[in-house]
Amino acid sequence: MQPLQNDRLLKALLREPVDVTPVWMMRQAGRYLPEYRKVRTQAGSFMDLCTNPELACEVTLQPVERFPLDAAILFSDILTIPDAMGLGLYFEEGEGPRFSNPVRSETDVDALPVPDPEDELRYVMDAVRLIRRVLDNRLPLIGFSGSPWTLATYMVEGAATKTFSRVKAMLYNEPLVLHRLLDTLAQSVTAYLNAQIAAGAQTVMIFDTWGGVLTPPDYTEFSLQYMQQIVSGLVREAEGRKVPVILFTKGGCQWLEAMADTGCDALGIDWSTDLADARRRVGDRVALQGNLDPAVLYSDPDIIRDKVAGVLGAFGKGTGHVFNLGHGINPDVDPEHAGVLVNAVHEFSAQYHN
Amino acid sequence: MQPLQNDRLLKALLREPVDVTPVWMMRQAGRYLPEYRKVRTQAGSFMDLCTNPELACEVTLQPVERFPLDAAILFSDILTIPDAMGLGLYFEEGEGPRFSNPVRSETDVDALPVPDPEDELRYVMDAVRLIRRVLDNRLPLIGFSGSPWTLATYMVEGAATKTFSRVKAMLYNEPLVLHRLLDTLAQSVTAYLNAQIAAGAQTVMIFDTWGGVLTPPDYTEFSLQYMQQIVSGLVREAEGRKVPVILFTKGGCQWLEAMADTGCDALGIDWSTDLADARRRVGDRVALQGNLDPAVLYSDPDIIRDKVAGVLGAFGKGTGHVFNLGHGINPDVDPEHAGVLVNAVHEFSAQYHN
Repeated sequence: MQPLQNDRLLKALLREPVDVTPVWMMRQAGRYLPEYRKVRTQAGSFMDLCTNPELACEVTLQPVERFPLDAAILFSDILTIPDAMGLGLYFEEGEGPRFSNPVRSETDVDALPVPDPEDELRYVMDAVRLIRRVLDNRLPLIGFSGSPWTLATYMVEGAATKTFSRVKAMLYNEPLVLHRLLDTLAQSVTAYLNAQIAAGAQTVMIFDTWGGVLTPPDYTEFSLQYMQQIVSGLVREAEGRKVPVILFTKGGCQWLEAMADTGCDALGIDWSTDLADARRRVGDRVALQGNLDPAVLYSDPDIIRDKVAGVLGAFGKGTGHVFNLGHGINPDVDPEHAGVLVNAVHEFSAQYHN
Repeated sequence: MQPLQNDRLLKALLREPVDVTPVWMMRQAGRYLPEYRKVRTQAGSFMDLCTNPELACEVTLQPVERFPLDAAILFSDILTIPDAMGLGLYFEEGEGPRFSNPVRSETDVDALPVPDPEDELRYVMDAVRLIRRVLDNRLPLIGFSGSPWTLATYMVEGAATKTFSRVKAMLYNEPLVLHRLLDTLAQSVTAYLNAQIAAGAQTVMIFDTWGGVLTPPDYTEFSLQYMQQIVSGLVREAEGRKVPVILFTKGGCQWLEAMADTGCDALGIDWSTDLADARRRVGDRVALQGNLDPAVLYSDPDIIRDKVAGVLGAFGKGTGHVFNLGHGINPDVDPEHAGVLVNAVHEFSAQYHN
């Protein structure tokens, strides 16, 4: 394999100098792309697509073939681990994910295995290996997982929720049971991400989609603690390079300092926080990834360019910034607009690097 | 009418001494109460209930008859103003509010009237007058409105949204059109709340449910600015007492200082912020209302009591705290648990007042 041709992402995540700010978009391989929708229809169900390494590879590469992005991200779902634990993941159209066998009791929790990534989750590792082969080091590949707390919310609720009634009842009434569940998940996520790294993921990101629904002490105890456990257990070097770790808690802007203290390399930032503030708060401890409002992509190209310039300016001079949206790209966005974003990042960011 | 028998709420909102911390719950007149569900079924549609002053009065009083709450809050909906503007509000079961005639263009915006509260919204004022008569000053009555930004999101989207695609496209592409809409709404809300105050509301609250989806500069420009305009235009005294104004932006914890600077009397705080932090940040400029995680009500009574004590302890000694949930009470909560909360607030808070 040739040496990595574009290592801006890995360098920026480690706060090493780059020529321009690297850019990728959360959910860049997704429904806003017509070529994705075509493969998705051919595949059958969403899980059929996730579990087929060839198709997962194909959709992973679609956005990087269309746009001059600085990274590919593995196409998969955050709920592969609970599925591998035997919960029976399925998707109902327009309903979000569901589990046939949600986790409701201490007995359920005690029965959960730590899945072997090269056995029950081999399809993910096969996808990582295949993507790396096909990418041929043109770009780095990002691996990922859901956070233990976020996985637990889906596992206990069994379906999408606005109130988090079951998982919060467990949190308040049976905190020790929830802690056992979270510990099993932290072990599982650690093994899963280490296997992704061994299979070829060059950086990994932990998505804590639901950390923001917790009170400050509960966030520390039930979400951050287990992300820290994972960060401590990850293999941080592969192929002679460091493997940066990115943490992202949606709605977690008030906890950036504590997140930076976990020993991770970078924080994902949603659009509710000004990047200049975030940078001032975390100093040079971590890089920052974000944070354009995904809704900016509904606006006209000249406005998209203007807002991209605004985010770059908010971060300011020097390395340590990976441009991204503050959340996943929405399915009803015009793909051309995503291209405008990517080009604008490269065009406008050179001035912030020497 | 007798003098106000329980003025803890009004005093605490103005940071005057009280014997115990006053308590009420957002959405306290609502679906978690079997007696509410009975009236709701009798009324027909949700809007039939809102537009019938006798029934609105009945459900307003249900929670204060059941629990020793320190205030009643008008039963109504935040979307009465857009409905009065001619948008045709209706509710589909499990779908949230919808408008038959959403606002999509500059022409639509220019055609919007400022509703006369004693004409198109007379049913609300009649409900306020009736509730005051029946309450007979045993407790104060809280009036309310949605914020201009929050109303605009529903008016432009026409239905519930997760992406805010239409209103954000307007914000980014046609900010001046959105500003005209928000100005019309600010005038309408000011007139509406002043009419509620004239009809007998003894304090008013502005619900900015969706301010938290904005970036920091957009929050200032498109939400906070118009709440400030309303605060400046409100009649702040009635029946020889001050009429406190409460602002609540869900997900707005990072903007508390700016919100306090609007000249309002109190801020609603959701459960994502520690009340001790919030108090330190706003100092003695405003009172604070909140902020128990509504999901605590899913837990056992002894845990509810423990968590109530935690919130009271976080605020600490002295006046300026109104106990509330950090968001509306959920429909699947056991009503007995709400009673445990209310009693615990009074029992545990005496120690914080002299």
